Amino acid sequence: MERVNLNEKFSKIAEHWHPYIVGELNDNYIKLAKLKDDFVWHKHDDEDELFVITKGTLFMDFRDKTVEIKPGEILTVPKGIEHRPRTNGEEVFVILIEPKATKHTGDLVTERTVEQLEWI
Amino acid sequence: MERVNLNEKFSKIAEHWHPYIVGELNDNYIKLAKLKDDFVWHKHDDEDELFVITKGTLFMDFRDKTVEIKPGEILTVPKGIEHRPRTNGEEVFVILIEPKATKHTGDLVTERTVEQLEWI
Repeated sequence: MERVNLNEKFSKIAEHWHPYIVGELNDNYIKLAKLKDDFVWHKHDDEDELFVITKGTLFMDFRDKTVEIKPGEILTVPKGIEHRPRTNGEEVFVILIEPKATKHTGDLVTERTVEQLEWI
Repeated sequence: MERVNLNEKFSKIAEHWHPYIVGELNDNYIKLAKLKDDFVWHKHDDEDELFVITKGTLFMDFRDKTVEIKPGEILTVPKGIEHRPRTNGEEVFVILIEPKATKHTGDLVTERTVEQLEWI
């Protein structure tokens, strides 16, 4: 029952594409991440994923289109849909809400996959 | 796979304390609401509830304390905990994320309870 100040938490994050947990909501984690440049194409077979942008512009590539998301905008990526988040060289701050079981690289495991998520 | 612009959706909401659905996330709805003055004391026996503030200051009363939440801050109200959201006379915009089964007045049904939630 404590509020979470997002900027205070973001200030503790150094790496890009490394989500940290800031809260729990039923069976979901609330995570924060700083994004920059391109991520990997991936999908989550069983989980929808919510992106809430608080800084910068996120480009979400789908196989047939790209959706641009700015602060004050949100996007849900439905389960099973291949997607690649990327930025245009700038740093983007994002709140992610997704089931606890979700891996951020989906069904793909690369050297960028963070296996053990941590709280900040 | 369409972004949702929060201010565009908020501009369609006239009433206070009436949540509208703007998205789905696994078994949760993403809702928007405009809040002003006091709501009712209530609790949700089985569901945590996430408040993301985008405008104004929300005061969340618990039986033993009050938590103040501003834009850029979030609060999870854990299941089973009595709470009363209220504002200091100003209008507050909030994103709510909670399981589809959740009633906004919890286990209390009053004339303010919205039985059938609608999408905007």
